[in-house]
Amino acid sequence: MSGTAAPAPGTDPGESTGGPGWDERLARVALSRTVEPGDALVGGWLDRLGPVETVRALAGERPLPGASPQRWAGLRLRAAAARPEADLTAVTDLGGRFLCPGDRDWPRQLDDLQAVRPVGLWARGAGALRLAALRSVAVVGARACTEYGSHVASVLGAELAERGWTVVSGAAYGVDGAAHRGALAVGGVTVGVLACGVDRAYPPGNSRLIDRIAEAGLLLAELAPGEHPTRPRFVLRNRVIAALTRGTVVVEAQVRSGSLVTARWADRLGRQTMGVPGPVTSGLSAGVHRLLREGAQVVTNAAEVIELVGAIGELAPQPSGPAVPRDLLRPAAARVLEALPAREAVGVAWLARASGTPEERTRELLGELRSLGFVHGTGDRWQLTSPRPRHPDR
Amino acid sequence: MSGTAAPAPGTDPGESTGGPGWDERLARVALSRTVEPGDALVGGWLDRLGPVETVRALAGERPLPGASPQRWAGLRLRAAAARPEADLTAVTDLGGRFLCPGDRDWPRQLDDLQAVRPVGLWARGAGALRLAALRSVAVVGARACTEYGSHVASVLGAELAERGWTVVSGAAYGVDGAAHRGALAVGGVTVGVLACGVDRAYPPGNSRLIDRIAEAGLLLAELAPGEHPTRPRFVLRNRVIAALTRGTVVVEAQVRSGSLVTARWADRLGRQTMGVPGPVTSGLSAGVHRLLREGAQVVTNAAEVIELVGAIGELAPQPSGPAVPRDLLRPAAARVLEALPAREAVGVAWLARASGTPEERTRELLGELRSLGFVHGTGDRWQLTSPRPRHPDR
Repeated sequence: MSGTAAPAPGTDPGESTGGPGWDERLARVALSRTVEPGDALVGGWLDRLGPVETVRALAGERPLPGASPQRWAGLRLRAAAARPEADLTAVTDLGGRFLCPGDRDWPRQLDDLQAVRPVGLWARGAGALRLAALRSVAVVGARACTEYGSHVASVLGAELAERGWTVVSGAAYGVDGAAHRGALAVGGVTVGVLACGVDRAYPPGNSRLIDRIAEAGLLLAELAPGEHPTRPRFVLRNRVIAALTRGTVVVEAQVRSGSLVTARWADRLGRQTMGVPGPVTSGLSAGVHRLLREGAQVVTNAAEVIELVGAIGELAPQPSGPAVPRDLLRPAAARVLEALPAREAVGVAWLARASGTPEERTRELLGELRSLGFVHGTGDRWQLTSPRPRHPDR
Repeated sequence: MSGTAAPAPGTDPGESTGGPGWDERLARVALSRTVEPGDALVGGWLDRLGPVETVRALAGERPLPGASPQRWAGLRLRAAAARPEADLTAVTDLGGRFLCPGDRDWPRQLDDLQAVRPVGLWARGAGALRLAALRSVAVVGARACTEYGSHVASVLGAELAERGWTVVSGAAYGVDGAAHRGALAVGGVTVGVLACGVDRAYPPGNSRLIDRIAEAGLLLAELAPGEHPTRPRFVLRNRVIAALTRGTVVVEAQVRSGSLVTARWADRLGRQTMGVPGPVTSGLSAGVHRLLREGAQVVTNAAEVIELVGAIGELAPQPSGPAVPRDLLRPAAARVLEALPAREAVGVAWLARASGTPEERTRELLGELRSLGFVHGTGDRWQLTSPRPRHPDR
């Protein structure tokens, strides 16, 4: 690929979105073909060099720091095979698009993933992703679920959608599919995050469902078109589901279920982690019960889920700065925001005292403020987001 | 009754137990006929005057402070009808006895009930109550339980008993009965706390079960022999179940279930509050799920229950002072105990800092230390128990 290629017809270059320019966009498309999901090494390069320089380096001989010769060779092979313009055209022909960090429609909460943030997202469907994802909840669980699990997931999906919440899941058999179907049945918005290209329907038995999600909501994938799902891709897809949403509800899961991975990512990212209990005699609820014992919240219906993920006011997406006006914050969140110093990063304990909010609650509210773009932080250090970050990419 | 009556044959006067003397014993027997369970007004009189003076006052004209004329008249009528020697003889003939606060076999954790502590306990069965109650767990729940609830309760009862824990419940239909039966089936110890006299079998359909509990374990009642159960007596019986045990497990309960009363008493008394989840589609699990959402712990088997109520070492009951030697405390509990000042009462937050223990955990450990007799406290003030309390009665 060349850094000076002209915009392909039908694509959405940076100037119309306020996002990154054409060079960066094309570089990220190429990287979506080159890099496996969750590759923190490449994430570090992107952070330091930006996507254009990273792609340029992958075309050269000198390995970037940290890559073993074998790893470097593998990345170079895949980079050389990338055909970003062709990929863009293929997905555009399907009515899809490619979203970059910094785009108006990029869900900023994905930035919480830091070094393992997707390089970009392929999207199919007409919905505005950022808006849809702001009030979204993940409903995930066992593929081989029981009738109980499928019933609960579809009722939950329908009730969440009816109350204006976007249902995010993985389009898999079982709980995932039931949650999507529940949302679709009431005319709601639902987002399916795939572990393959957005041009593929996996699992094949859900191809009609996947088409319906693309029609009524959005299909997302960080992998380039045509890519197949693999075991690690499934597992790493879950971090996107967790990061995109304000909380993850697990409906039936065995103790080694991938949906517990989603829940643990949600917890790590400061999102709500929730589980629907079931009979203790059922192995398909054992994973959920373990999660609950680890501190996840018990939820038995959509109202309880919404109570936890919190109602936020009317949304007003903006290209930079917080996605909702400060005035629309709930009083508790506003208090924590007010207490943050202008420039310094502070600890959670300090902030809890300063805002007169219990520490656990402060942590939750910080997660909320982060997903709304007001603050950023890692672990125990938190600070205000600058109104115009110097590196719009991060 | 007269304060100078001689010991009735077959009863166990104070001198052989290190407990209160004959006068006080007889006064408490009379009060068990006179006072409704949980009467804090009479509890206050007992605290200030002792049982002998309280009974004497109830035989006089001048009302004790706080009693309305109607209340006073009612209590006097019932006090006049009390025949304590006859009651003692009747229960002794059944192989039973009357336990007073201060008796060697009195479970000191009941003292946490303060003004609503039972005036005494009628007991039927050969077991040593104090020993049995030290490692005990309440398993309670819906009378009209499902097969699921009855299955879970009986397995839990059996597994707890197999691991040397005493199963305490209310001898009712449904979950209670299943828990008792589970414990009995493995030859374990189980304690039934009745809302009527220990000479009665209520509910009648459980009369065989109630007899078996008396044979293999213990039946307890704060009401005098012959007394019938009433709605308030059922509800107030639950505080005894909660106070007697190191934690309460609720297996199936509707949202207005009496077993939630037991759980909330347990929580207020610093005991563990636990719930066994079930299908969210079942109204008989809705009360349990509400409890879990209020902060009770999710448990799915006996091992998880025991993990929460804590394993304590070998027991060495003593007439006064802690019921287990300090050396046998778990390190975490020992650390909190060590941090308590010699004479002053301190707050939980202070103690958490001093012992380097998270505040929530400190609270749990204080509950444990209290039930073992090392500390006493109300709400937020805690202090060491004197080795020989000045009022052995409290």
